[in-house]
Amino acid sequence: MNSPVPDRLAALRAAMREHRAAACLVPTADPHLSEYLPGHWSAREWLSGFTGSAGTLLVTPDHAGLWTDSRYFSQGEQQLAGSGITLMNQHVSHAPEHLSWLQKHLHQGDVVAVAGDSVSLGTKRQIERLLAEVGASLRTDLDLPGEIWSDRPALPRAPVVEHAMQWACVARADKLARVRSAMRRHGATHHLISSLDDIAWLTNLRGSDVECNPVFLAHLLIEADGRATLFVDRGKLQDATVAALATDGLQLADYRSVSDALRELDGSSALLLDASRVVCAVADAVRDAVRRIEAPNPSMALKARKSGGELAHVREVMRRDGAALVRAFRRLEERLAAGMVQTELDVDTLVREERAAQPHFVGESFATIAGYQANGALPHYRATPESHSTLQRKGLLLVDSGGQYLGGTTDITRVLALGETSAEQRRDATLVMKGLIALSRARFPKGASGPQLDALARAPLWAAGMDYGHGTGHGVGYFLNVHEGPQGIRPPVSGSALVALEPGMITSIEPGLYKPARHGIRHENLALVVESEQTEFGDYYAFETLTLCPFDRRALEPGLLNPEERAWLDDYHASVRTALSPLLDGADLAWLERHCAPL
Amino acid sequence: MNSPVPDRLAALRAAMREHRAAACLVPTADPHLSEYLPGHWSAREWLSGFTGSAGTLLVTPDHAGLWTDSRYFSQGEQQLAGSGITLMNQHVSHAPEHLSWLQKHLHQGDVVAVAGDSVSLGTKRQIERLLAEVGASLRTDLDLPGEIWSDRPALPRAPVVEHAMQWACVARADKLARVRSAMRRHGATHHLISSLDDIAWLTNLRGSDVECNPVFLAHLLIEADGRATLFVDRGKLQDATVAALATDGLQLADYRSVSDALRELDGSSALLLDASRVVCAVADAVRDAVRRIEAPNPSMALKARKSGGELAHVREVMRRDGAALVRAFRRLEERLAAGMVQTELDVDTLVREERAAQPHFVGESFATIAGYQANGALPHYRATPESHSTLQRKGLLLVDSGGQYLGGTTDITRVLALGETSAEQRRDATLVMKGLIALSRARFPKGASGPQLDALARAPLWAAGMDYGHGTGHGVGYFLNVHEGPQGIRPPVSGSALVALEPGMITSIEPGLYKPARHGIRHENLALVVESEQTEFGDYYAFETLTLCPFDRRALEPGLLNPEERAWLDDYHASVRTALSPLLDGADLAWLERHCAPL
Repeated sequence: MNSPVPDRLAALRAAMREHRAAACLVPTADPHLSEYLPGHWSAREWLSGFTGSAGTLLVTPDHAGLWTDSRYFSQGEQQLAGSGITLMNQHVSHAPEHLSWLQKHLHQGDVVAVAGDSVSLGTKRQIERLLAEVGASLRTDLDLPGEIWSDRPALPRAPVVEHAMQWACVARADKLARVRSAMRRHGATHHLISSLDDIAWLTNLRGSDVECNPVFLAHLLIEADGRATLFVDRGKLQDATVAALATDGLQLADYRSVSDALRELDGSSALLLDASRVVCAVADAVRDAVRRIEAPNPSMALKARKSGGELAHVREVMRRDGAALVRAFRRLEERLAAGMVQTELDVDTLVREERAAQPHFVGESFATIAGYQANGALPHYRATPESHSTLQRKGLLLVDSGGQYLGGTTDITRVLALGETSAEQRRDATLVMKGLIALSRARFPKGASGPQLDALARAPLWAAGMDYGHGTGHGVGYFLNVHEGPQGIRPPVSGSALVALEPGMITSIEPGLYKPARHGIRHENLALVVESEQTEFGDYYAFETLTLCPFDRRALEPGLLNPEERAWLDDYHASVRTALSPLLDGADLAWLERHCAPL
Repeated sequence: MNSPVPDRLAALRAAMREHRAAACLVPTADPHLSEYLPGHWSAREWLSGFTGSAGTLLVTPDHAGLWTDSRYFSQGEQQLAGSGITLMNQHVSHAPEHLSWLQKHLHQGDVVAVAGDSVSLGTKRQIERLLAEVGASLRTDLDLPGEIWSDRPALPRAPVVEHAMQWACVARADKLARVRSAMRRHGATHHLISSLDDIAWLTNLRGSDVECNPVFLAHLLIEADGRATLFVDRGKLQDATVAALATDGLQLADYRSVSDALRELDGSSALLLDASRVVCAVADAVRDAVRRIEAPNPSMALKARKSGGELAHVREVMRRDGAALVRAFRRLEERLAAGMVQTELDVDTLVREERAAQPHFVGESFATIAGYQANGALPHYRATPESHSTLQRKGLLLVDSGGQYLGGTTDITRVLALGETSAEQRRDATLVMKGLIALSRARFPKGASGPQLDALARAPLWAAGMDYGHGTGHGVGYFLNVHEGPQGIRPPVSGSALVALEPGMITSIEPGLYKPARHGIRHENLALVVESEQTEFGDYYAFETLTLCPFDRRALEPGLLNPEERAWLDDYHASVRTALSPLLDGADLAWLERHCAPL
């Protein structure tokens, strides 16, 4: 099949010539700055053919480059081959390295185009500052990819439904009241929110406009006096839902009318917005006379600290999710033992089937990564009908998957030994396990941030001259996005803000190790930040592991674990057995007990 | 004795009224932004009576506050009692928390005064920005403390001497050439340096204008074409030195004429300067027509990576310094055993005597901290003739000391058990030792920064609900300042820049633990960043411990160390014995061997 990419690039360059743009930036972004995009805004993927979740395309008359981070180096090489686009390996994830390149290649007076609904207000300012240094300028009113995109997908129209109080646990009126009290502290009369998970959490509504993320396209303008406007496609909501929203002071307006509403604010208004979470195309509608108060969305910190009610549901969901995986893994082993041909796609199906059999399951929280042997070395691998591996009774199978349930969101990675494994594989898997255990066991003072703790998970790998190119942990939503801020456990980055870990936050703990063309390891649990102890030195916190599913000891080398590490793993498996055995019987229960026995 | 502080504050407030200043800021700073100041610029100490090395005094008509960090909380409480100044505990070291306070207490139109030779250009901008938010403004042309300071000490006039090539290892012409090549990369025609250690290192000159730091007061203006001007008191240099400098293109000018020289630069000039290392009183002399290039002083990164010649001298200095401490500690024990009365001051004397007996010793690198029992809990304690403790044959004595030698600078802390110790003391000392060992053994990838590694040293303490309020490691100069940038091992701070650890850098590794009114622990070695291994994952670095002196095992609880930790400590002691035994004999050698035996 000939790649359509060269033709699309040619069309983009023609549009650039017409508008006298020296360069066109195509970020991976929608007007809500979501991580995963509806097809309507996947311009970067459409133009480049690169399907990774992160990356920036930059096109000039004689160069086209795609900047992405180490998770996607292998995938980028494959997908960009022959496209006329050069893979530009990013040293630091999300760093604006493409802008440094641009600075070097632009001339005085050059114009760079980027669609205003694909860059945040903060990013726009950053780009403008960097371009100004070389005498170039930015236009955000030109959507050049949009102009040439003939078969552009329509906006999604999935229904928006209530997340019932039984599950949401806190009424939206209460959540809105908490945001309004934060607005009062800021002296704001209005607060604009474009981030979809904040809107879904605040309104106790859920949708399915974005694959695997139960969100819906909307903006939300909250007024301090008790009113609020939800900018959303009215056709997605049932009348009863609209009436219920009205009771809580939430009126509806057309999704595309948010800019008009902002334009109507006058000089008596003070608008709270998060410059990194609102696109400039929307924010620039605000008149200069309006006082802007820039701060993180208060809802982000509020939803990150899960309530007691939410956590009770999450604990139950973890039992159900763990039991589903035990059944799926057991069935996979049974089929392989029986000589049935099984592929990575079958793993995907088995896991989905077992989750779907659990109560209150809604869907996957992301596309399952089932990577056998060398495929496991691609951290964001996805098997497809066109390209996948057949499993053999040897080596390692990495399975990273998650579910959306009405009572929570899961994300778990296990590495299964399908038969004989190499000493190198077991050693690698054990070193990664040491990292997971070190971080899972860590206590830390109140105020400590994820970047402060990140090295604890890496040190055992560093000692062996190895590392992994992704973060160690991300926040997780409650029946919401599987990646949720503001907290994160990753190496510190120069100049960036640090967010303290606080009780009630859920984070993944997922060190890994990837040896291209050989194998990949990742062990991942979700953990809850809990209060641990008050001492004369202050408050100390710890992680409580939430995920309940055994690790495959056949992939480990127990002799490399020290007594404390073995004790942690034995304790963990004992608690998994206690939690899951009431949900399993027969061969499943036997499998659980075998995998949960002390090392 | 009545404190003179209230009268001085009253005089300052009178000067504030006269100049209509609503507040006066008195930082701890001189025109070179040194850490330790000549008396001439110790206005903050003179005004407040607080002798700590860090802190900011802020005076308004009805409030006087001194902001300092946790190292100095106890000391601040004592020294500020009855002064009319409130100790303002800083949560984050060096954070501008006093400015947040100011913002809350100022009114529209208020003027804040700060001496322009006591704030960097960068800090001035930061203060102006924060004041602008509340409609207040800054004046840096008013030196109000200087106006009222009747008995102000004169400028120091200590001689400036050559650091002979035998010791300096790299000629100043070569060092200047390397700075000029960095200037060319920046496109700079001129480069202004005010930081005293950079100037001393670049010129291979040393002085003693600042206690314990072998630097001299000067500014340096380097031209890209090969000329340079050293602004220094001519009377401090011998004619031969002046002639030697001239040979290398270095001419002299009056110390106070640096602003005049800068004022003469015209629009054809491009001046490289470090906004955080030049005071605004100097930088503001530069005309607007001159292009300013702001970047860290290139000399900072160059001098941080020690040369092979320097390191050879440092290794020898470490042997001499370790032998001196062994002799001092052994003599102290002997005197105590003989029933002689010994105080913390005697420890100071013993250590200084033994160092002074070593070849090429110049002086102390900082005032010795000898803190017995509860005094050890004051991280920057200094025994004085007026206030010190008498040692008993029990408990813990913390000794933090260092020497300046022609071939290097040392900094070492040991905790001695003078007799019976409590289980709590031994446990605390062992947990701190676990932190020192964890960091000393760490391998880490190229590009890792100190803040990324800091938690490795803290994790064993955190696990017990404990922590320490200072950094874990600082860079160390070569016969220069005992605190030297740019690297540092400390918790990451929001928004701050990270500096990668690079081979050739020397850092202290010094976790601690302080229990007020009970005891303090700190174990400190100096370590060198070295290349460790190249793997498929890149370059890995490690620390090579440089300091050579046994730890007092009587203060430890070996049962709390795991096998790897015991092995590290045994290996370390074996290498100390090998290195020091040729320098010791008799009772000293026996003491060394006893303390270096395997645990």
